[in-house]
Amino acid sequence: MSSSSNLDPVFALHRGGKMAVAATVPLTSREDLSLAYTPGVARVCEAIATEPDLAAEYTWTGHTVAVVTDGTAVLGLGNIGPRAAMPVMEGKAVLFKQFGGVDAVPICLDTQDVDEIVAVVSALAPSFGGINLEDISAPRCFEVERRLDEALPIPVFHDDQHGTAIVVLAALRNAITLLDRKMDDLSVVVSGAGAAGVAVTRMLIAGGVDADRVVVADSRGIIHGGRSDLTPVKAELAATTNGAVRHGRVATGGIADALAGADVLIGVSGGQIPEEAVAGMAPEGIVFALANPTPEVHPDVASRYAALVATGRSDFPNQINNVLAFPGVFRGALDARATTVTDGMKVAAAEAIAGVVADALRADAIVPSPLDPRVAPAVAEAVADAARRDGVARGA
Amino acid sequence: MSSSSNLDPVFALHRGGKMAVAATVPLTSREDLSLAYTPGVARVCEAIATEPDLAAEYTWTGHTVAVVTDGTAVLGLGNIGPRAAMPVMEGKAVLFKQFGGVDAVPICLDTQDVDEIVAVVSALAPSFGGINLEDISAPRCFEVERRLDEALPIPVFHDDQHGTAIVVLAALRNAITLLDRKMDDLSVVVSGAGAAGVAVTRMLIAGGVDADRVVVADSRGIIHGGRSDLTPVKAELAATTNGAVRHGRVATGGIADALAGADVLIGVSGGQIPEEAVAGMAPEGIVFALANPTPEVHPDVASRYAALVATGRSDFPNQINNVLAFPGVFRGALDARATTVTDGMKVAAAEAIAGVVADALRADAIVPSPLDPRVAPAVAEAVADAARRDGVARGA
Repeated sequence: MSSSSNLDPVFALHRGGKMAVAATVPLTSREDLSLAYTPGVARVCEAIATEPDLAAEYTWTGHTVAVVTDGTAVLGLGNIGPRAAMPVMEGKAVLFKQFGGVDAVPICLDTQDVDEIVAVVSALAPSFGGINLEDISAPRCFEVERRLDEALPIPVFHDDQHGTAIVVLAALRNAITLLDRKMDDLSVVVSGAGAAGVAVTRMLIAGGVDADRVVVADSRGIIHGGRSDLTPVKAELAATTNGAVRHGRVATGGIADALAGADVLIGVSGGQIPEEAVAGMAPEGIVFALANPTPEVHPDVASRYAALVATGRSDFPNQINNVLAFPGVFRGALDARATTVTDGMKVAAAEAIAGVVADALRADAIVPSPLDPRVAPAVAEAVADAARRDGVARGA
Repeated sequence: MSSSSNLDPVFALHRGGKMAVAATVPLTSREDLSLAYTPGVARVCEAIATEPDLAAEYTWTGHTVAVVTDGTAVLGLGNIGPRAAMPVMEGKAVLFKQFGGVDAVPICLDTQDVDEIVAVVSALAPSFGGINLEDISAPRCFEVERRLDEALPIPVFHDDQHGTAIVVLAALRNAITLLDRKMDDLSVVVSGAGAAGVAVTRMLIAGGVDADRVVVADSRGIIHGGRSDLTPVKAELAATTNGAVRHGRVATGGIADALAGADVLIGVSGGQIPEEAVAGMAPEGIVFALANPTPEVHPDVASRYAALVATGRSDFPNQINNVLAFPGVFRGALDARATTVTDGMKVAAAEAIAGVVADALRADAIVPSPLDPRVAPAVAEAVADAARRDGVARGA
């Protein structure tokens, strides 16, 4: 392993990990130590004991988040456990720093029990300014996020859900601008009802898509109130999409039935979608096939039928990449000392991402590059403003 | 607060905290991201899933420890809770980095329940290469450390106990060299039976002091088997010190009775000791009065009766400072991938600290300066060697 890995650029880069801690104060003289440690530090402790909110001002918690996983749904690898998940969490942490200037600490938990995860994260929450949940399998991730968000006075954000959903909404906004369409007249099919599918559906509706014109499909077909095999989360989808709101037409059947005449396909399932089904979409359609590494439909195939195509891959145009969202979302939430992440903050993040390329829109550039340095600052400012508008900001 | 604090050097230094996270790999190109994050990172995850020990090699856990507190016994401030404890834990973390090259993450827990602390720290243990427990009140700290050390495959070290004990043993070794005495003919009084007192007593015995000639006193007087008010830990002291081992003479009474004719006083209580009691010690004695900021007996007073005096303060000679121990202890334990910290490793650390100044011993220099850059590397090497000798090293 070790010897061969020295010849492998990926393993060579990962030797010793990808991050370190650094002091931001001098520690070379007795005087330095007496200020940064004893006896000086005692007065800062006493000030925070008297006024706990000062912790955000006089400790690193004001700019630090935990990247928390239980290792149950890591990339496409599935349930590989906490130790094997660490390289991904370290990668996430260094992206937080690189793009958002957010200090992030990977926390990989040796438990997959929802009650224990909630208890552990609640116990260590005073050490951080926010909690980024990562790669926790559905449907457990929904309960973990809901209970932590209710319990904690800091932002809790499951990136696999909301990061993806924010970037999808950003891409769709620019797509309909190019095609001169309106959100509320789109018929949208979401293929996949896991963490990303559920969050994308909620985000699109929050962003102006007509809930009755959104159809979600899982591996067993279209989700509707007539199905008896729905988890609580999928039952909620059945009650809030697909004609259920105004008691309109309810779609049933498989993915091909869902796509017949649809304007938009958003694939977040990994399940393959046959070309014939895509061929049945309305003309001038939009296809986001986000499964990695194998999109639900190959972008070259999708392009035969759709006017705009996006994927999750860096080797095709229009990469839908969460890194466009999470660094700026947390930077903005921390700057505003937000107590939670509202739908308004997520929509504002999507608008900000879309806005970065709004003046140079092209069919192969509906979202910015993941490396575009303009994105995170724009997202951070929009998210902080939205936090203040929504009344969840403790800071200035 | 904020305005006045800008004029205060301690608060000015603490604004924004004292530490940050840094990436140790490049993240500026698509190629960088494909190596450090997706898709490249997946292969590192798979390798660790197959061979978990590779996590120490290919993630930052191999050089990273958690500095864990529940905020119950912070400095001299007592039970100030997790948020107010953070400045001390950040200080500890940056000292780990500065002196030991160890990356340390402060974890301040919002629980003071022993079972919950053990469960939480056990759950997050895969994220770290070691656990430094800090400022957890006695007697809870003994159970927390014991249960975590039994449960976890990584070093667990309560610095308030063992860091202090290691530096005390180092100082005592050099003291008796100067005075041409032997460990096993010293009569030693330990004033204080909290975390430090218990650990110092055990360490001195592990270091060669005759257990029957160690007398420990708490606020109620000398600890002996005849007392009915002893906690389990103090009952163990009564059974392992003060004549109990070979059924020799058992001392009873107060601190003055304990000190009558004693060679060594080690104060780790904070309780004041009257001059007359110190005056009753044997000639050519040794006094370590370690309470901060107010030593049990003022060093100027102690010097009237003792040949060698040390304190915990930086403004007197012979400062007994834990920073001489913990950075090198964890550096060495991590380098050897030790599964625990044995008594042999602690004694080796004490010998290494003493050895740094052995060739330049003076009555006012029986321990190195806390800033002496030679200390941590010497301690690390000695601790790693001892870990291999004691058979607790997984690494090379």
